[in-house]
Amino acid sequence: MSILAVGSIAFDTIKSPFGEVNNLLGGSLTYFSIAASFFTDVNLVAVVGEDFGEEHLQVFRGRRIDLQGLERASGKTFRWGGEYSYNLNNRETLFTDLNVFEGFRPKLPEAYRQANIVFLGNMHPLLQQSVLEQVSHKRLVGMDSMNLWIESTPRELRGVLGQVDVVKIDDSEARELAGVYNLRSPRMLIATRGSHGSMLFNGSDLFSAPAYPLEDEVDPTGAGDSFAGGLFGYLAECQEIDAAALRRAMIFGSVMGSFCVEDFGTRRLERLTFDEILDRYRALKQLTHFDDM
Amino acid sequence: MSILAVGSIAFDTIKSPFGEVNNLLGGSLTYFSIAASFFTDVNLVAVVGEDFGEEHLQVFRGRRIDLQGLERASGKTFRWGGEYSYNLNNRETLFTDLNVFEGFRPKLPEAYRQANIVFLGNMHPLLQQSVLEQVSHKRLVGMDSMNLWIESTPRELRGVLGQVDVVKIDDSEARELAGVYNLRSPRMLIATRGSHGSMLFNGSDLFSAPAYPLEDEVDPTGAGDSFAGGLFGYLAECQEIDAAALRRAMIFGSVMGSFCVEDFGTRRLERLTFDEILDRYRALKQLTHFDDM
Repeated sequence: MSILAVGSIAFDTIKSPFGEVNNLLGGSLTYFSIAASFFTDVNLVAVVGEDFGEEHLQVFRGRRIDLQGLERASGKTFRWGGEYSYNLNNRETLFTDLNVFEGFRPKLPEAYRQANIVFLGNMHPLLQQSVLEQVSHKRLVGMDSMNLWIESTPRELRGVLGQVDVVKIDDSEARELAGVYNLRSPRMLIATRGSHGSMLFNGSDLFSAPAYPLEDEVDPTGAGDSFAGGLFGYLAECQEIDAAALRRAMIFGSVMGSFCVEDFGTRRLERLTFDEILDRYRALKQLTHFDDM
Repeated sequence: MSILAVGSIAFDTIKSPFGEVNNLLGGSLTYFSIAASFFTDVNLVAVVGEDFGEEHLQVFRGRRIDLQGLERASGKTFRWGGEYSYNLNNRETLFTDLNVFEGFRPKLPEAYRQANIVFLGNMHPLLQQSVLEQVSHKRLVGMDSMNLWIESTPRELRGVLGQVDVVKIDDSEARELAGVYNLRSPRMLIATRGSHGSMLFNGSDLFSAPAYPLEDEVDPTGAGDSFAGGLFGYLAECQEIDAAALRRAMIFGSVMGSFCVEDFGTRRLERLTFDEILDRYRALKQLTHFDDM
């Protein structure tokens, strides 16, 4: 079983009340891939620039991540800068330099065209569409999106949404999405609410997944992408993707998101073990248990 | 088993995107008492003015609420006005006319001095203190508070907190409370987060209670008080108040809070049945269930 994941790799500059880091490896696909690779094989499709060195590739190597689909283009890697306020709930984007990501046209290696799970990272709906057209067999398609696409390319977004099984989006943007689109069309919607947990709308079956309460949140960057990585990574290995499996997958998503925010960038994920993941899954079970009545 | 509850009864003027009501029966003790009376006998201590008529008493009558401790003073009943923004998360106070509540000095009828559970509504810590001094036997003491008292009377608040088992407070004010007081001293802290659920800190045992997802929230006024009513009302009838009972109580709190917001003021609570309460408890169980791993 494997997952095909397409999205962005970037160098991030992050300021938070707990410190500042410059040009740290980031991008939604980086978080997604590392998180998913704890559960399944990840076939990654992305573009980086000439400034992307062996030290950055090391973060992916030694994991269940295939780099055949990593394209190197002439120019610089995507760069993003953001700053968090004291309570970490508000993020201000300081700069976005798309660089080589601006010309990104995902090309799937032949071996990637049969995918168990396809995950379309947050990017222009036409890029997401082009990925779907290159995959001949897919069991489940998930996608991420954001208000930028809801507002600027609603028509293209609608086209992709009609071919997707699971949409993962920030809760604050879910209402906006409902405005341009009948949310009943993708089979499932996952609304993430940061430290308030997340919600799965699976037809008439609703599931509320708790967030793991952390004493020290350092950097929320990538938490939602790590959530998606844990969720879809776990699903890729499930014999049957039924309501119960989706609920377990939401919890693994919550677990991966919670680890991500414990340190800057991917640092916590890099030193994470599967035993720690299972322990936190069990802690979430204990955190939310109450008697039947 | 019974509960002694002291707090405010008021007439509320509420503006929300879903309508406007004037001089509707409200006040924290009103919500608390009606919610708690679904579970246990409530002995109510409060003050109202000459404008408080039989039609207002009717809301309490026919329930498990004893009105011996309801004092009628000369003057007007406490009046409060508030306005909610579109997403109902922001509330602006339009006016606060304390009226007879300003001179309120709680006097417990003799029959109230032996209480199973004591609940000190959100009011000046010296009033809360005077209630505690009048109770000769108490099994569990709960209290509510707010930033006004944290900021203006930290010393008096500290005195009360030292005699209390459970503090219920809005999550946004929990940090502020920690600033003036070592939160380890009351045995338990409950932080409510509105539509994001609530959290119980019971020593090293943490419990995250979900909020019931509502399609139509109309008026959040009294949701936290209804939560407290369900929680302490249920505890009053428990043979043993252990960690499992506290978790069940948190869920009943969440259930009562969720019904409260479905209509203006106490309207939804007034037409509520115990079967509906049990159904929603079970719905919350279903909403949060996931497999062991």
